[in-house]
Parts: sequence; structure tokens; C-alpha cells
Amino acid sequence: ARSYNITLLPGDGIGPEVVAVAKDVLSLAGALEGVELRFQEKLMGGSALDATGVPLPDETLAAARDSDAVLLGAIGGYKWDNNEKNLKPETGLLQLRAGLRVFANLRPAAVLPQLVDASTLKKEVAEGVDIMVVRELTGGIYFGKPRGFGTNDNGEETGFNTEVYSASEIDRIARVAFEVARKRRGKLCSVDKANVLEASMLWRRRVTALASEFPDIELSHMYVDNAAMQLVRNPKQFDTIVTNNIFGDILSDEASMITGSIGMLPSASVCESGPSLFEPIHGSAPDIAGQDKANPLATILSAAMLLRYGLGEENAAKRIEAAVTETLNQGFRTGDIYSPGTTLVGCKRMGEEVLKTV
Amino acid sequence: ARSYNITLLPGDGIGPEVVAVAKDVLSLAGALEGVELRFQEKLMGGSALDATGVPLPDETLAAARDSDAVLLGAIGGYKWDNNEKNLKPETGLLQLRAGLRVFANLRPAAVLPQLVDASTLKKEVAEGVDIMVVRELTGGIYFGKPRGFGTNDNGEETGFNTEVYSASEIDRIARVAFEVARKRRGKLCSVDKANVLEASMLWRRRVTALASEFPDIELSHMYVDNAAMQLVRNPKQFDTIVTNNIFGDILSDEASMITGSIGMLPSASVCESGPSLFEPIHGSAPDIAGQDKANPLATILSAAMLLRYGLGEENAAKRIEAAVTETLNQGFRTGDIYSPGTTLVGCKRMGEEVLKTV
Ligand SMILES: CC(C)[C@H](C(=O)O)[C@@H](O)C(=O)O
Ligand SMILES: CC(C)[C@H](C(=O)O)[C@@H](O)C(=O)O
Repeated sequence: ARSYNITLLPGDGIGPEVVAVAKDVLSLAGALEGVELRFQEKLMGGSALDATGVPLPDETLAAARDSDAVLLGAIGGYKWDNNEKNLKPETGLLQLRAGLRVFANLRPAAVLPQLVDASTLKKEVAEGVDIMVVRELTGGIYFGKPRGFGTNDNGEETGFNTEVYSASEIDRIARVAFEVARKRRGKLCSVDKANVLEASMLWRRRVTALASEFPDIELSHMYVDNAAMQLVRNPKQFDTIVTNNIFGDILSDEASMITGSIGMLPSASVCESGPSLFEPIHGSAPDIAGQDKANPLATILSAAMLLRYGLGEENAAKRIEAAVTETLNQGFRTGDIYSPGTTLVGCKRMGEEVLKTV
Repeated sequence: ARSYNITLLPGDGIGPEVVAVAKDVLSLAGALEGVELRFQEKLMGGSALDATGVPLPDETLAAARDSDAVLLGAIGGYKWDNNEKNLKPETGLLQLRAGLRVFANLRPAAVLPQLVDASTLKKEVAEGVDIMVVRELTGGIYFGKPRGFGTNDNGEETGFNTEVYSASEIDRIARVAFEVARKRRGKLCSVDKANVLEASMLWRRRVTALASEFPDIELSHMYVDNAAMQLVRNPKQFDTIVTNNIFGDILSDEASMITGSIGMLPSASVCESGPSLFEPIHGSAPDIAGQDKANPLATILSAAMLLRYGLGEENAAKRIEAAVTETLNQGFRTGDIYSPGTTLVGCKRMGEEVLKTV
């Protein structure tokens, strides 16, 4: 039997609850397809800070690197919000992304027919939206140097960061995006601020040059401010979007909210070779942590992405996705996606219902 | 009689059409309130490039500086999109902002009761939205140095920019925002990415420190990715938003699209002393330029802001705003805000209708 090692990073807030449920779903779907999954759980984020003093212990990174794929819950919480930078849960996440070199973050934002009413957009605008945001994840202003605090000519304190991209960083993320677009509807929109920023001018130039290798893909360019508008005006115009780290952070969250159900949305962060990282796009939701109220479906769907893209186990991935669809069709809903006439359930129960249909 | 000098910068695309209409409305509203307005028109943007080889001729900046207020139409167009940086219309706009030192950009995004259906958001979500985005306009990554193109250790080309804020730059924009919030509903949300960027950490620290001077204002902080989501989820939670140049570029455009009628939205860019700059938030719309299809109301409402904030002529400002409301109530609509049952008119006719009711 095929067997794989999976590192689980439950993290903080609702992370442990949703990862526990997703683990059971993964195991069962694997077993039914003759795949053995071995799990190891490691500390990460605020819980790692509390236990070890750092947000990403060396042991956690080493374990993640040695495994076949990594499933992360969520990190962060009010408790650590005012920590200095090296002691922020978020810093652990950035170290994990850098340590695994997962430069390509794939964030689908699709409106499910069962949940179209959850969107704040009018039905005719939201219906049928199916966007994939390909976000550069290990470069740009998140990692650029120099960065820090300084003093300017007037003796005043300054805070500064560097937005920087090299030609090869742009090329490799653009290639991923062209390939993704090819498996989707063949349309790629590259988002930048090339009317102002040199980093974006290079971005646009490289993406444009690569287009000749992908003659079957319809490439367009859009300024980031316009993209933020167009996502609200007519999200259906987009198929695949590729953009830098910070614009991707903003636009992928905007796109997910357009679906109205961010508790449903998975993500995958992939590298050139080595384990990929899978996580729900929602945060740690400290206000509902430990109350069995969280929606585990985003993590369950992240587990499906893990099977497909991380392990190449397409059949097991399809089983999970079909089970989620079936569970929604049966009317089960957590609080975040509840509407009158459906059955309100908690995190565990939602997991049990998915298990029944896997 | 009070008299003022106004510099008009029609710019490109639909700019000349909408500025011509706004000029007539300004003149009449001024005359009716005993205010004499003297206009001088100068070249700016793509039209300046074509005529003089630079996007902001010295003469234009000098005239703008010497006047009491500046009204800009719009700049840019496909024709100049691939120009190198110093020959882009946008560069002229950035030079104008820097030259006038207009560090505070006020961008209202309010859903008018007559136009609530124009929003792509559900009526109950859009109705009553009334947001003011206060965007820092002369600092941050738009102007930070070093910037440019370089070569990294691998001999590859790079493009880079610097996001930098000093304490006093943050303090002065935050003060404007606190004052604006005080004249509105007393709520200020500061948007940053302080979980990742040092420039944002300083931003949050300074804004928080200033709050003690404004005990009557309810201050909150939000990460930019979350703000992009919350604007879609529940825009009514926002009153005044303050943020940096690039986040403000993105979020103010997103907020304006939430109103569904960006053809209606004015903006003001103000400095510590000297003339302020007023402009519609929409672009130059080259596809409909010269066809008498543009909506002049955003520029007309920018002219009202010019009277109020630029010249302190509140009565004339109110006259214009009341005339716009009355014209909408009478059912006149340009194409961008047309809905069945209203009267479709062009740019000039819309101006005539407003003039009748001024
Ligand atoms: C937690 C934070 C550092 C992170 C990011 O900005 O990348 C998050 O917002 C995300 O999008 O995964
Ligand atoms: C044209 C461009 C340089 C400008 C900006 O980014 O500031 C525009 O988008 C705006 O918001 O006024």
C-alpha cells in the first residue's frame, strides 16, 4: 500500500478543532483508496510561543520538511497581537513558508450553488463566480531587505520595508499561474501597479515576455486598484489572477469574501520540489475557539487539495470533495453559513456527517 | 466681492468634457453667492506630454501653486501606457501631488438613496453606506527611496521600491483623520499590515499614541486584508478609514465600487497651507472620451468640495450639492447610472440640468 507522512500543525484558536476533524476525514478517505497516512502533530504559532518561546520551533520546521505534505489549521490571537515582531505567531507562519520555499499560493474562490445566498453580492453577480488567485508567497515586501526602523535626516523615527522582485521570482510564479490557467478556463489576469512601482514594471515586463510560451492562454494586465473594484463590480470576468505577495494577500481575501463563505475556502502553497503546505484561508477566530462552532469544511477541502496536489492521490481527493458536496446537499450548515431551512450543526457533527458520506 | 483664482487641469480622455461642465456650474454657483471665480486652464497628463514632452510642465505646477484651488479632470490613456516612467501621465499626477504637498486625500464613498440599486451589493448591505477614506498621498511606497532597477547576487535583474513612513508623516495624516472623524460619526479605523511590515508597526504605534488627544473618537485598527473583506461583508461598520498611500489607493477604489456609482464620487487632496487639489475619483475612460457620454457629477461634486474646503464658500458648495440631488430626483441619469424608468442624458445635458437647479 502507498503510505505517506503528514505533518499536522493545528496552531491556535479554532485550528486544533478543524484539524482534528480534517485528520479523521483524511484517514478514512485514504484508507478507502488503499492509502496509508501517518500523522505527526507539531507546535506552531501562538501555542508554540507559549510552550517553547518561539513561533516556529526548529523541530517543527524539520518535521515539516521531512514529511510528504503539511496541513496547517490557523495561527494567531489577541493574546500575542502586541508581541514584538520575532515573537508574533505570524512571523512563525512566514518562517514556515520561507523554510518550505512554498512560493506559489493557490487560493480558489468559488461560489457554491448551495451557498450563493451567503454572498453579500446580488445573486446574479455572485452566481457562478469561480476565481483562482495565484499569489507569490515568499518574496516581495514580506521578505525584502532592508527593513526595520531608522532615523531620517530630521532625527525622526522611520519604519521601512522593501518591495523587491527578481526576474526569476516573477518567472516561476508566472509559470505556475499560466499552467493553472491552462487547467481552468484559459484566462490569466496579472495584477500590478506598473503605473507607479518599478517592482511592478519588471513584473509586467516578465509576465508579458512569458506569454509567448503559452499562446493558448489569454493574458491581460490590470492595476491593483482597478482589480479591487472589478472584483466587486463583476467578479465573473476573472478566471485566474496572478499577483505579488501583498496584493495577493488583499485581493485573495476580497475575492473569498465575495463568495460569502470564507469558512469553506481551502488553499495550497507549493514549491519547486519538497512538501507543500495546505491551510484554510480563514483565521484562528479566537472569539469562537473551543466552542465547537467552527466550520471545518475549509480545512477538509484543504485536505482534499493535499491529497490531489501534495500526494497525487486524485481518487481520495475526489471522495472528500464529493462528501462535502453531499453533506451540504443534505442541508447541514455551521453557523457561518446557516440560513433558515437548513440544519445547524457544530464543528464535530459536521465532521461526522462528512465521514458518513466519504 | 470675494474673488479667487482657480486652476483647471482638464487632462485626458473624458477630463476636458467633465471639467468644462463643472466650470460652468462653479461660475454660476459662485456668482449667485457673490463670489467671483477666475479660471486659468493648464496642460497636464498625456495632453501635456503630447504638447510639451513632459506630463507636468513647470508652468502648470507654478500656476497651480499660485492659485487658490485646483480642479483636475482625469489623466492617462492607452496611448501612453507603455511609456517609460518619466513619460507617463501618472508620473505627472504624482509630481503635482508632491509639488502641492497635498498629503491628505479625502475620498468619500456614500451610497445615494436614489442610486442604491446601482451597487452590486444587496440592497440591505449597500443602503446607508457612508464611508470617508483618508489616504496618505505624498509618502509611502509611491515616493520612497531607494527605488529602481538593479541586479542581485545571481546577476539577475530586480525591480524595487521602498515603503517608508516617518513619525511626523504618520502623525499629520492621522490628525487630519481624527478631525474628519470628529465631524462625522466619531469612529476611526486605521488600516495597516502591522503583523508583517515595520512601516505599519510604526504607523499603528503613532496612531495609537495620538488617540489620547482625541478621547471623543472611537479608534480601531484593522489589517488591510481583513479591511478588504469587511468592506464587502458589511461596509456599514465603517465611518472614517485612515491608511497609507498604497492601501488607500486599493481600499478607496474598492469602497467606491461598493457604492455602485463611481461616476458620482469626488475627492479632495489637502495640504498644511496652500492650494488644495480636487478631482473625481474616476479615470479618464478613453473608450468613451469625446462622445458626450461621461458622467460629470463626480467633477461637479468635486467643485462643491473645492468651494467648501478650498475656498471656505459653504453656501456656494451647498447650492451645487442641492442641485445635484434635485437633478437626480428629477430622474436624469448618464449611462453609467441609468436604470429603466429614468431619463438617459449625455454629459452636456446633465450639466445643463444641474445649472437650471443651481
Ligand atoms: C497572518 C498573515 C501573516 C498572513 C499573510 O499576510 O500572508 C495571512 O493574512 C494570510 O493571507 O495567510
Ligand atoms: C493614476 C494613479 C497614479 C493614481 C494613484 O495610484 O494614486 C490613481 O489610481 C488614484 O488613485 O488617484
